[in-house]
Parts: sequence; C-alpha cells; structure tokens
Amino acid sequence: MTETHAAQTEEGPVETRTQTRSGGRAGRRAKRSTAPTSISRPYIVRNLPPHDILSEESLVRIEDTADAILAEIGIEFRDDPAALDLWKKAGAEVDGVLVRFPKGLIHELLKTAPAEFTQHARNPANNVIIGGSNVVFAPAYGSPFVMDLDEGRRYGTIEDFRNFIKLAQSSPWLHHSGGTICEPVDVPVNKRHLDMVQAHVTLSDRPFLGSVTAEERAEDSIDMARLVFGKEFVEQNCVIMGNVNVNSPLVWDGTMTRVLRAYARANQGSVLVPFILGGAMGPVTVAGAIAQAHAETLAGCALAQLERPGAPVVYGNFLSSMSLRSGSPTFGTPEPASGSLVVGQLARRRKLPLRCSGNFTTSKLPDAHAMNEGTMSMLSAINCGANFVLHSAGFLDGLLSMSYEKFMMDADFCGSLHTFLDGVCIDDNALALDAFREVGPGNHFFGCDHTMRNYETAYFDSALADNDPFEKWQEGGSVDAATRANTAWKRTLADYQAPPLDPAIEGALNDFVARKKAASEDLWY
Amino acid sequence: MTETHAAQTEEGPVETRTQTRSGGRAGRRAKRSTAPTSISRPYIVRNLPPHDILSEESLVRIEDTADAILAEIGIEFRDDPAALDLWKKAGAEVDGVLVRFPKGLIHELLKTAPAEFTQHARNPANNVIIGGSNVVFAPAYGSPFVMDLDEGRRYGTIEDFRNFIKLAQSSPWLHHSGGTICEPVDVPVNKRHLDMVQAHVTLSDRPFLGSVTAEERAEDSIDMARLVFGKEFVEQNCVIMGNVNVNSPLVWDGTMTRVLRAYARANQGSVLVPFILGGAMGPVTVAGAIAQAHAETLAGCALAQLERPGAPVVYGNFLSSMSLRSGSPTFGTPEPASGSLVVGQLARRRKLPLRCSGNFTTSKLPDAHAMNEGTMSMLSAINCGANFVLHSAGFLDGLLSMSYEKFMMDADFCGSLHTFLDGVCIDDNALALDAFREVGPGNHFFGCDHTMRNYETAYFDSALADNDPFEKWQEGGSVDAATRANTAWKRTLADYQAPPLDPAIEGALNDFVARKKAASEDLWY
Repeated sequence: MTETHAAQTEEGPVETRTQTRSGGRAGRRAKRSTAPTSISRPYIVRNLPPHDILSEESLVRIEDTADAILAEIGIEFRDDPAALDLWKKAGAEVDGVLVRFPKGLIHELLKTAPAEFTQHARNPANNVIIGGSNVVFAPAYGSPFVMDLDEGRRYGTIEDFRNFIKLAQSSPWLHHSGGTICEPVDVPVNKRHLDMVQAHVTLSDRPFLGSVTAEERAEDSIDMARLVFGKEFVEQNCVIMGNVNVNSPLVWDGTMTRVLRAYARANQGSVLVPFILGGAMGPVTVAGAIAQAHAETLAGCALAQLERPGAPVVYGNFLSSMSLRSGSPTFGTPEPASGSLVVGQLARRRKLPLRCSGNFTTSKLPDAHAMNEGTMSMLSAINCGANFVLHSAGFLDGLLSMSYEKFMMDADFCGSLHTFLDGVCIDDNALALDAFREVGPGNHFFGCDHTMRNYETAYFDSALADNDPFEKWQEGGSVDAATRANTAWKRTLADYQAPPLDPAIEGALNDFVARKKAASEDLWY
Repeated sequence: MTETHAAQTEEGPVETRTQTRSGGRAGRRAKRSTAPTSISRPYIVRNLPPHDILSEESLVRIEDTADAILAEIGIEFRDDPAALDLWKKAGAEVDGVLVRFPKGLIHELLKTAPAEFTQHARNPANNVIIGGSNVVFAPAYGSPFVMDLDEGRRYGTIEDFRNFIKLAQSSPWLHHSGGTICEPVDVPVNKRHLDMVQAHVTLSDRPFLGSVTAEERAEDSIDMARLVFGKEFVEQNCVIMGNVNVNSPLVWDGTMTRVLRAYARANQGSVLVPFILGGAMGPVTVAGAIAQAHAETLAGCALAQLERPGAPVVYGNFLSSMSLRSGSPTFGTPEPASGSLVVGQLARRRKLPLRCSGNFTTSKLPDAHAMNEGTMSMLSAINCGANFVLHSAGFLDGLLSMSYEKFMMDADFCGSLHTFLDGVCIDDNALALDAFREVGPGNHFFGCDHTMRNYETAYFDSALADNDPFEKWQEGGSVDAATRANTAWKRTLADYQAPPLDPAIEGALNDFVARKKAASEDLWY
C-alpha cells in the first residue's frame, strides 16, 4: 500500500513516500508539500480540521447531563456478575444490576485508555492507526439482506459475504475489511463467525473485526487471529476488534459486556456503540440523546479499562432519528448530521478515538435518495472528526440490506473524501504567483509551466462519475450511475486476486475451523 | 410566510413567531428556544457556525497573493472607458485596458460596501437579508436545456421558465425566485429579459434577479422593478440584483461592468462571480485559483462602490475543477468543496456577503451520481457560510440542463438544510434530564412527557424520502426517488396558485413589456 511517486515541491522534484506504516507524520509531511490527491493510502491523515459547532459552555452542559445520568439514574449491567464485581471494586454503587457512578469515577478509569492505537493487518503495509488525526474507512456492517440490480433483495449468503470482502480489498479507498459485512444466513448461527473470520483473513490482507454475538465466538475470533499473528504478538498488539452495541437506553446486556471484556482481556480493541433512535431508545431532542450516548459509551470504555487497563477502546456513536408520521427509523437526516459534529467534540475532549456515522440511508435502491442521505451522513462523519468510519460503503434500506451497487458508489466517494480531507495546501507552488506572471489576463492555463508541473496530482479522478458531455454520454447508451456501478462490481469481482497467504497459516485456520465446526451441532437461531 | 406555532420553552408553552420580516433577531431568538426544525421561513438565520479550515497565517498568504495579482499583474477592463475613468480617478494605474491597483486601494474602496443588506420582495413577508448569519436559497441559473423523465433533454422555453418559477414559489424551502432559471430560447434574445422579469413578478412574490446580458436590459429590469416597488422606494432600497461574471482569468468584460455599474447606479445589488475551472481559467492548484478569484471579485465589488458608494455587492465565487483525462469540467468534486471553505473565510474577513457553490453535478440524470455530487457541493456552500446560494435547486448536466425532478429533490434537501443550520439546541428541555428520570434504564421514550412535549417539532419531515419498510415500499410499486420527484413536480404545478398582485402593477408591466417589444426587431443571437 505504500506508494512512491515523483512530486514537485518548492525546491524541485523529489521522490516522496506518501505515507508509511510507521505512522502518519511522514505521510502528513509528504502530503503537505505534494497534495497527492488521488493516491491510495493505508489510512488517511487528515489536514482538514474537524467542524466544531458548540461552545465550551454548551459542551460542559452536555457533559454535566451525562454525569448526572451516570451518578443519579445509572446504567444496568445485566447477566454479567463479573462486570458488577469489577464496578463494585472500582467504587461504583451497585444495586442489583443497576450501577451508579460517583462523579469523576468514569473519567479516572479512562485515563488508561489510549488516545490512538495501531490495529495491525496481516500485511503490515495495511496497518491502520485509529485515533488522533487519522481516518479509517470500513464497509457497512450487519445487514441480513443483500441487493443488486439483477436479483433485487434476498438474504445474504457466505458467497455474498466473501464477495464484499473481495470488493473491499479491491478498493483503493477503503482501509479496513470490516466485520459482519452481511449476515451469511446459509451458515448456522453458531458457526458463522468461523467462516467470516476465515474469509477476512484469506481474502483480504487488511485489518478486520471479529465476532460479538457470544463470548465464545469472540474468543474463537481472537484465537484465529493468534494463528495468523502469533500468540505473543497478539498479547502485545491490537490485531482484531469487536463492535459492541449498548442496549439503549442505559442498559449494557451481558452478552455484550462479556464480549467486550473478552477483547479487552486479550488486549484487543472494542468499539462501544450506543444505537439511539431519538424518541424510542432516547429522548426526542438531539442534545439529550447525545448526553445519553456519551454516558453509555464512556461506561463501556471504562469497563474495558477495568478488565485490562490500557486495552484499546473506541468511543462509538450511532445517532439516528425517526419518522414521526410512521414511527420508521430514518437515516441520513439533518439532526444526526449536526448532532455528530457535537459527538466529535465530546470524544476529542475525552481524548478517545471516535467511531461515528457512516453512509446511511433508508432508500431501498441505489438512487438519488440513497446518495443524498448517504453523502450528508458520510460528510458528518468526516466533518465531526470520526477516526473509524464503519458503514462507509454499501449501506441501504435502513441497514437491512447491503447493496453491491451502492458499495461501489460509496467506495468511490471514499476516494473523493481522501482529497477532501487533504484540505487546501498553501505553499508557493499552490499559490501559483509564477503562473499568473506567465499567463497574464485573458489567457488560459492549459499548457503553462505551472499546470504541467502540477496536473498529474491536481484533481481527484472518480472511477464512477460520468463527466462526459451529454452527447457523448448519450452515444454511450445514457447509462445511469447505478448501472455503471453494476458493471463495476462485476468487473472488480472478475479481476479479483487473493493476496498471498502463508500456506501454514491457511492450513492452521482450516484445521481450527473444521475442528470447531465438528465440535458442536448446527444452531439456526 | 410568517408562521405562528405553539412551542414549548423552558418556561412552558408559548406562542412564537418563528421569524419576522423585520430581521433575523426575533427569528433567531425564537429558534433557539424552540428548534422549529421543519418550519418554512423567509430565509435562514444560521445557528451552526461555518467550518473554518485555514489558519490566520495561511489566509494572509492567500490575501497577499491576491494583492500581488492586483498590484503587479493587474486586471483588464475591456470595452468600458467609463470604468477605466473611475479607476484612474480612484488612483489605480491604468495602462490601456489593464488596471493595476496599488496595495490598499481596493480595501479602502470596499469600506462603503454593506456587510449585509435587505433585498425586498413585493410581498414584504418574503424580504431576505443577505449577509451576516443569513442564508438565502435560490434556484439554479442559466441552463439552455431543461430535462424531465418524460421527455428527456430539450431546449428551455418560456413555459419551462414559468414552470420553474411556480415550483420555486411553491417550495417552502426556497427563499428567492432566482433569475434566468433556464434560457427561454423560444423568445428573441433581446426580449427575453422582459418576459423573464414579468414572470418573476407575476408568478412569484419572492425577491428575484434581473438581466445581465446587456446594459439596456439591466436598465429595463430595474425600470420594471420601479413599476412594482415605486421609483422612490427603489432609489433607497435593494429590490433587484444582477449576477455578473468575471471573464476569468483577470478580465472584466465591458458588458459585465456596464451592467454592474447600472445596478450600482440604481442602488441595486450585484453578485460578482469569478467562474474558474482550475487548469483552464485559473491555476490547476486550488489555492492559486482562490487567490485569483479573490482578486477578481474584490475588484468588481470595488468598481460598484466607485459607481455608487454603498451599493449592495455580493462576493461571488464559482470554483470548479476539470477532468484531467478528458478536459471536461467537473462539478461537485472534493477540491471545490474544501476550497469553498477557504473562500468563506476570505469573504468574512472582508465583511462582504458571500455567494458560493450550490447543488452542482455533471450527471445527466437525477440519479445517485447527481445527488452524491450535489449534496457534497451544497454542503460546502452551507459549511463555508454562503449567504446567497444560487444553484440551490435543479442543476444537472454541468449547468447545461435544468431538471424538473432534480429541482424537487434539491428543494427538499434545502428543507433538510434548514434543520441542519439550526444546529444543536442546548437548553434544559433539549438536555432532557427529566426524561431520563421519568423513563429510566431499559424502557422506551415513545409516550413519555418529554417526547409528547417535543415530538411535533422534533425531526425534519422530508416530503420526498421514502422511509417505509421495504415490504411497504414494494407494495407501493418499488418507486425510485426520481419517479417520486416526477410525480411531485406535476402535482405541484397542478396545485399552483399565483400570489395576488395589484392589477395596476400588472397592467403597467404589461404596457412596459408591450411597448419595449414593439420598439425593436427580434434578435435571435
């Protein structure tokens, strides 16, 4: 993934490495002088600052409300006595399953949580740094259905699941293989995680997420990662993460806390995500929903620190709204878009990596509605400073369907966002006073020295947009964006080649999966 | 347009006027306490701060480059000796048609330009304030073609032109009737402006733009406005504006400067717009294109001040990029999106109202591509702090076509942006601590007191999005967004009713148009 290219700086042409896996600093330095706007990278180091919208005073009011929720109302931790023990020992007030947190306790516990951490990939060139100024794009997660223009909506299968890993791996604009990209419903519920982790490891060489549906499946996922990376390496480094949901409002279910503790215990990452549809699982007002989510995710992050101080955690958020006419959930609407900007400020104040928003929509087709809502929502993730953007590609139908065509559109948009996040480069070359001296009033810049020096890296070049004149587009068949995307995913799958994998690792994974599958009955619920 | 609704504040239910035509302050006050997220207003007073991305140091470097362009390279003012005279008298260096501006001259001249001004509508409830924290949405401008799903692309006619005025007037989310919404190519070139201004006045009661294609057509437009508003009122107040383009790079054509001087002379507004496709009419690097545009628009604003100190001017910008594979212009791409954020900072530093960006795309259909680019582009206008957003609705095909369906989609998105620009309300009601006390962990918020008090104003309610579950959407015919928009524009036109107009004014306009049309031959070029 590390690319080398010739670039022009104020001092003349130089060879630069746009980014190296050892961290973002070198990449950022190279980027500032060269603005490599269309170059694939293992992750983005943003130059564009986040969009802060609330004052210190308003942010403190939200934090105070979250503190009051934590201290006065409390959070239930159900079906996980070990979690309750940890809370008791830490000084929380435990009353049955209800835990109340004396003011300051959560913030004290979070001091051991890293502000940023590396998630390792089996190809080290694809390691990502989560937190700080870094942005990592991962595919959408968790849809039971898949869709394409040819066959419409149907339940996802392991073949679909593998296809989406291949599409993600083939995209220059995604950084992470994701997790349950779609539910492979043709595989027994208790064995899906084995096939999914195996697919991530064998078909992709990027980082990925493990199972969160049961503690033993999380443990299996981590064990499989140990086969890939080695036990000792995994003990010291984050190589897998679990994406864990709060059962909002103010309930952490035992399945989830056992899973997050399993990841933390193994020194692996967890993303702790309140999913709040305002008016249902939280207040109908945005500020209240944010305060609630803040309390919920911080409690989860703190529990991970109790399990193992220093375990990587990601402040998660999935703010949404609903139609007050029908009660249906809505996505890509303006309230979560502005609300996410506030969530970003809150996460940065706590110095925690942030997962927020994504390319959300309720549309049932990869149409104008889908990309209007999706773009609004994705830009809120970008502008709020999210570090890990799950649901970057493929989300349709209110998260019920993974769309092949929308996946391609979204991945292309992620490319555009690489350039957007580079911001505006200000140096002598970019300011181009020499070009004005050369060209002067009334002439064009097509062939001038400045253009010739800069045009190769000048503009993002979308693979899916049709910028041709109308007549040429018409001669080409008047093809719409969804149809272009349909052609693109089929071509991409046809061209896909698996990244090389050590046969010993592949064999060990095969053995592990076969052994685990043989050890238990198939369960279908 | 002024709506009254019952709202809940911290003190209990009150009657509030969400906004009044006397200005934004009352509206803002009401908005802060009530968050009326789906309420039509004459214009938006934003609570969401703009997104500033560059440091003071970087901004100064751009301004210094613009100053160097103005002082050293200069701008040509062609075919307008009176403009050259004005520059000479003001102290500029005039060499043939080339004008160079000693450092500080432009900034000194701009001291008389208002930071914000009211553009009056014939219905005073629709007056808009342009500048400051205010945001005004106007339809797209200038396409020779129109499109709809039924008939595809064809040249625009006066009937299309009138249709778009009706659609704009019918939208609760647009504030301004715009100008040349499409070119009515069935009307002689030298008489189009008469029919267009007449259509704006009779079919809409919102503010509008006049002709800019020739000085006498601008004068006709202003004369027609005088018939509507009265001569003395027009002398004292802005009731019409002209949208005037720079012939970038660094050339102001005489047609344009005569027109802008005509508007200024009548104390009417002008929007001064460099249109730069980077690599063609400006440098291929964004910072250079911005510095050039800054110099060009400031020179135009200053010329208006020379013509009549205090004349309303709008700092205009139309930054774009091009495909370096084909040379085609591109729109809705990431470089103008981040570049616009810088343009916003520059305009605010000069305390000038800003026109920037809009809902841009190269797509030839109202499809996913159109709304991905359009949403990215429109959000850059919103986030950069643009005050007057021309091209808010209908733009397709790289500005060559006005689309009926995209107009409806974009107008609906403008509704969503009303809510987005309200930002996140922080008060006791919004923070909802009482709701948490009432509901507690594990329960839902559907019927709680806080939800009942707030749900009516809680979420933006899109008229075009389909948030239904998949099965219900399928039962309804699996309709896509473009088809829903097609139904919507036809229904809107069928339901349209013209706003009342004083028959004396209508008669005077008819006489004026008839007399002017009779006085000259039809010209078709």
